[in-house]
Amino acid sequence: MNQHLHIITLGVRDFKKSYKFYSEILGWKPSSASNADIAFFQTGGVALAIYPREKLAEDAMASPEGSGFSGFTLAYNAQSELEVDEIIADLKSKGVKIIKEPQKVFWGGYSSYFADPDDYRWEVAYNPYFQFDENGNLKLE
Amino acid sequence: MNQHLHIITLGVRDFKKSYKFYSEILGWKPSSASNADIAFFQTGGVALAIYPREKLAEDAMASPEGSGFSGFTLAYNAQSELEVDEIIADLKSKGVKIIKEPQKVFWGGYSSYFADPDDYRWEVAYNPYFQFDENGNLKLE
Repeated sequence: MNQHLHIITLGVRDFKKSYKFYSEILGWKPSSASNADIAFFQTGGVALAIYPREKLAEDAMASPEGSGFSGFTLAYNAQSELEVDEIIADLKSKGVKIIKEPQKVFWGGYSSYFADPDDYRWEVAYNPYFQFDENGNLKLE
Repeated sequence: MNQHLHIITLGVRDFKKSYKFYSEILGWKPSSASNADIAFFQTGGVALAIYPREKLAEDAMASPEGSGFSGFTLAYNAQSELEVDEIIADLKSKGVKIIKEPQKVFWGGYSSYFADPDDYRWEVAYNPYFQFDENGNLKLE
């Protein structure tokens, strides 16, 4: 198994609401592989998918019940503190729930969080130690 | 906010155990940005990170409690059904919990699931409709 992650799929409680969130509020373009109950978004080198939570649980042979912290976060790495501020201000103006206002954080960066309709947490951060490749993906060493 | 996802961070209950799982059992190389309680793995165009669950929840301003289905899945897209079989056989021989044996599935592909130490579900699938770019990332249209 090569060191690769191709898709992250979010199990969503209200597909139409989440579809609108990602496609209209974030403004991301769905892939043509999307259909009535799954949507794929090419997000840099990985695909983000949304799919009804109960169906995702069934596919993964899990019980769909679950509560509390989902256990994961997603991160968007901006190119500057200013870009973090601009993104959060824009999302706030569109009614997105801001969980953590942009602020300096202990590891030397600048970080904020917003929540998607299922309360999945997205970090929007600037990390001065990270570098990017020509496709805008992080380039770790 | 560009259409990009840079990092997915998994909140793990036992950092050493999860570190061993990803670095030794899956055999993935941690980035030099890793330290005693966070590890980053360059997994194609996205970074996968592991971080103690309580600290991740604190960072995301969530309560760390949570139970049941985490609500998301991660997927590794193989190049063939045979590769899916080989990966699952290899992981099984290493004691990894196989949730779903490789099988034909309704959407026309071939899919299986294994669980990581926190029971986060990884799908290993072959999807004959997907294409890859020169870096091995999915290329959606």
